[in-house]
Amino acid sequence: MKTLIKDVDIVTLDEKGTVIRGGAIAIDGAFLVAVGKTPEDFAPDTTIDGTNHVAVPGFFNAHCHASMSLVRGYAEDLPLDRWFNERVWVAESALGPEEVRVGAQLAACEMIRSGTVAFNDHYFYMDHVAEVVEASGMRASLTWCQFGTGKEVGVDLEGALAFAERWNGKAEGRIRAMLGPHSPYVCPPAFLREIAALAKEKGLGLHIHLAESGEQVSRSLATHGVTPTRLLEDTGVLDVPTIAAHALYLSDDDVAILARRGATVAYCPITYMKLAMGPGDVPRLLRAGVSVALGTDGPASNNDMDMKEAVRFLTLLQKLACRDAEALAGDASLRVATQAGARAMGFPEAGALEAGRAADLVLFDFDKPHLVPRHDLVANLVHAAKGSDVSHVFVAGKLVYADGTILTLDEEKIRAEAERAAFRMVSRDLTVLRAYTS
Amino acid sequence: MKTLIKDVDIVTLDEKGTVIRGGAIAIDGAFLVAVGKTPEDFAPDTTIDGTNHVAVPGFFNAHCHASMSLVRGYAEDLPLDRWFNERVWVAESALGPEEVRVGAQLAACEMIRSGTVAFNDHYFYMDHVAEVVEASGMRASLTWCQFGTGKEVGVDLEGALAFAERWNGKAEGRIRAMLGPHSPYVCPPAFLREIAALAKEKGLGLHIHLAESGEQVSRSLATHGVTPTRLLEDTGVLDVPTIAAHALYLSDDDVAILARRGATVAYCPITYMKLAMGPGDVPRLLRAGVSVALGTDGPASNNDMDMKEAVRFLTLLQKLACRDAEALAGDASLRVATQAGARAMGFPEAGALEAGRAADLVLFDFDKPHLVPRHDLVANLVHAAKGSDVSHVFVAGKLVYADGTILTLDEEKIRAEAERAAFRMVSRDLTVLRAYTS
Repeated sequence: MKTLIKDVDIVTLDEKGTVIRGGAIAIDGAFLVAVGKTPEDFAPDTTIDGTNHVAVPGFFNAHCHASMSLVRGYAEDLPLDRWFNERVWVAESALGPEEVRVGAQLAACEMIRSGTVAFNDHYFYMDHVAEVVEASGMRASLTWCQFGTGKEVGVDLEGALAFAERWNGKAEGRIRAMLGPHSPYVCPPAFLREIAALAKEKGLGLHIHLAESGEQVSRSLATHGVTPTRLLEDTGVLDVPTIAAHALYLSDDDVAILARRGATVAYCPITYMKLAMGPGDVPRLLRAGVSVALGTDGPASNNDMDMKEAVRFLTLLQKLACRDAEALAGDASLRVATQAGARAMGFPEAGALEAGRAADLVLFDFDKPHLVPRHDLVANLVHAAKGSDVSHVFVAGKLVYADGTILTLDEEKIRAEAERAAFRMVSRDLTVLRAYTS
Repeated sequence: MKTLIKDVDIVTLDEKGTVIRGGAIAIDGAFLVAVGKTPEDFAPDTTIDGTNHVAVPGFFNAHCHASMSLVRGYAEDLPLDRWFNERVWVAESALGPEEVRVGAQLAACEMIRSGTVAFNDHYFYMDHVAEVVEASGMRASLTWCQFGTGKEVGVDLEGALAFAERWNGKAEGRIRAMLGPHSPYVCPPAFLREIAALAKEKGLGLHIHLAESGEQVSRSLATHGVTPTRLLEDTGVLDVPTIAAHALYLSDDDVAILARRGATVAYCPITYMKLAMGPGDVPRLLRAGVSVALGTDGPASNNDMDMKEAVRFLTLLQKLACRDAEALAGDASLRVATQAGARAMGFPEAGALEAGRAADLVLFDFDKPHLVPRHDLVANLVHAAKGSDVSHVFVAGKLVYADGTILTLDEEKIRAEAERAAFRMVSRDLTVLRAYTS
């Protein structure tokens, strides 16, 4: 299958930060064969008119819990501890495989519509998420979360490994699998050691939560005598490629550890604002050589899975928090949201628009008043464009979304099923039930 | 003209915070005659099916410079002083009446599409903005900005007053006019005294910038011996209804002055983040009894005029800045974005959905994956809904936007004219010209 997108403006995110006005993109199979000019001998099966559209690499959502889309709006205006104890863990106690499937389908619809081509998911009953990924045409890196104390999450470590081995490389290579210890504040050090050793033996990466609050750091120091980050290094977690979600509270030594070990921090700005956790310091990490990717986190703490929103929040929050209007200038945030996540999730061929790279790309329809004028395509993308301006999404060369229609999933059916499943999940909680039936 | 919206979910923002599922809204002329149940004798000319839609009061953008839409994306990644001196004032030096007209048209298209029914504009050549407001069907409060030193902004104070008297109450009462001294850091105290006395004499309000940086406060203390806020009180500015944009740097005494004088602070969160100015403290103002409204500011510092984005940024930024996840809980931000602005801009009849109030309302289309499930309509509105989910906009009972089409303005023509006008404005700057022609 050969596709030509012609007369399109292109933000390549290549090494030079090239911006092309009125160029062409040629796709052959899963890869880009030309970006800029149409190759002379290229005979496309399909041609898309890119007039007034801007092409950009698709977003890689580097940390989420997709199925939590069912608890969107169910845990509002609460601090982190009450958010967990009174709402999220209550709702999740009613969670089963069917809710995970429907929640992942709903999340996939939302992510595709807003230009996300891949997500890094950390949750339970993950075979159901993998099936959704396979059907949706997206890429994903999938982890069956482990607390380290038994089978309360559906499987024990052996089961989580079996899941990873069952799905790693499947769906024409669109799925990667990792192991997923929840966090150093939930998992005992002995379990971190065990899972890290297993990951190393099996050649798998790890996806873990890290240092979300100052209190977690204090408790780690009191209990283990080291910071959570140092604990990850001591237990061997950082011996394998690791995506550490959040990592907001880091000493200079912690930052140096993450840089030296090549870990990626998955930064989720909207969660940090909603739960009043703190802004972190992304430029500090980048200066130290730590790879930073961008995530939406789950819709209970966000409340969306729109990476375009996350790009804007990342950029503006870091400018404010660093008191530096030049922080994350130009296309820096777009790189964090695309190629940094692609590398960490095991798809280094994606994340930039260059011949030879994966054809994972998104077209934004700029024929909208909020995207006029076009002094600066990158600024319009970072600040003014919305996820809803996405008109086309290609993953591995395949068109999965075009002009308002998801081509791989039955969105209308999914919306209806999700609404019902969400109602069932929370209907044990009589407060909510009364609100529904009053 | 009578309109019935049936089977619609309604977030009324009335005193009780009533949320109605599957209700009706009856509009007769410019006013709401029923919210909840259809009156028995109501014979509508038009009926809109509100299934899967949520009705909410339209947004009042309490501080902007609409015509700066032409410099969207032209002043990026710069601190406030360089943003002004190197970019904004350079571009504005090429500004004429035609640019103001086209820029206001472009901004009106963007605002209508994203659910804004009224804006509070502070700029130059304001007859052209007033004409756009009249044609667009929007409401507005308009101010011809004055520096206080001559006619360099098109008119002197006499001309600005003549503008106000020409337009106040026009367009079937949709236009209000105020006087607009730029700020206490630009206008000499003698001029503030003069314009305040004139506003008092003529029964007009004032719209001014205030306390945007700590440096402005220090300079005011050094030059005038008082804070900028105290200076406004001393010069009589606060003797008339005043909208003070920004007011980020306030002493306790300043806050008390604003509360006692009934001034409204127009808070513009995206500007404060982009230019790294600081978050302010909205709950502190509200606790002290200061009215706080919400603005987008101009598109050079935002880069959009989407009040729905501003609602989300207001909510999340204040939760983080106050380190309080409960800050601005529930529908608090929606009230700031609607009724607080409506009151300050001279339309106290708008801003809530109740019988007898103005029919200024917006329908959001919730038939989207990111707005499912519907545990909490208010949370979905504040956090997950986008301006692009707006499907219908009524201003004073008149439908101005429906299902993707602006019914009052020729959007396609405006987009094309705006792109050309924006190019002309910046083409004196050779850096930009080279980028366009390379």
